[in-house]
Amino acid sequence: MYQLHPQLAQDTIAVTSLPLCDVLLMDDARYPWLILVPRLSGISELHRLEPQDQQALLAESGRCADALERLYCPDKLNVGALGNVVPQLHWHIVARFHDDPAWPGPVWGHSPAHPYTAEERELRLAQLCELLGK
Amino acid sequence: MYQLHPQLAQDTIAVTSLPLCDVLLMDDARYPWLILVPRLSGISELHRLEPQDQQALLAESGRCADALERLYCPDKLNVGALGNVVPQLHWHIVARFHDDPAWPGPVWGHSPAHPYTAEERELRLAQLCELLGK
Repeated sequence: MYQLHPQLAQDTIAVTSLPLCDVLLMDDARYPWLILVPRLSGISELHRLEPQDQQALLAESGRCADALERLYCPDKLNVGALGNVVPQLHWHIVARFHDDPAWPGPVWGHSPAHPYTAEERELRLAQLCELLGK
Repeated sequence: MYQLHPQLAQDTIAVTSLPLCDVLLMDDARYPWLILVPRLSGISELHRLEPQDQQALLAESGRCADALERLYCPDKLNVGALGNVVPQLHWHIVARFHDDPAWPGPVWGHSPAHPYTAEERELRLAQLCELLGK
């Protein structure tokens, strides 16, 4: 049965649910950073998803990528699935900027997160939910 | 017109061509690391590919992931598209191990590559071409 990994639950804020995936916001105010988690159990690798689920994940990733582009005009998006620390399959979509702290390196493992203040969090969630639904 | 970005040409060794993508081997003997580059021009973001090309990329990624798993039995695969340094859309598939130098962090930006010796390169290319075709 699907259950969100406790580490992901701790590091993120729920945004919305799409047909295949839960959409989470990484609690790091330095980067608009979404994580998609397919509501399936026991899958760690992208290519182990059924082909139709791979397509659904990519479609939902595209929807999130469009939203991040429209809202924050990033210089680049970084997308992918690593899972070295949390084995539950989860897909990152990170809006990157030339002046962000990790640029041009990856955000993963760069430095500890800067959690959102309550106000920042509410604002970002409102922006995201307007484009992605609640 | 499609042309491989000079930085990718410099950092990699050609393995084979699949229907959409050229398959390249990153010239870093520490990680079995493939890069897929769709033979298209002017595209930097995954979600800007036409849907059928996104599907083809994912299918070809799955084929490469299977090959890496069969050949090297990695602990985890890392897949994704960053493009902070090289804007041409390129898709990483990296076989990761608990005792590799960057574990559990990402390989990107970790440390300079350790190029293959001629012998190591020929062996790896032969292994990959046997599963992926020439």
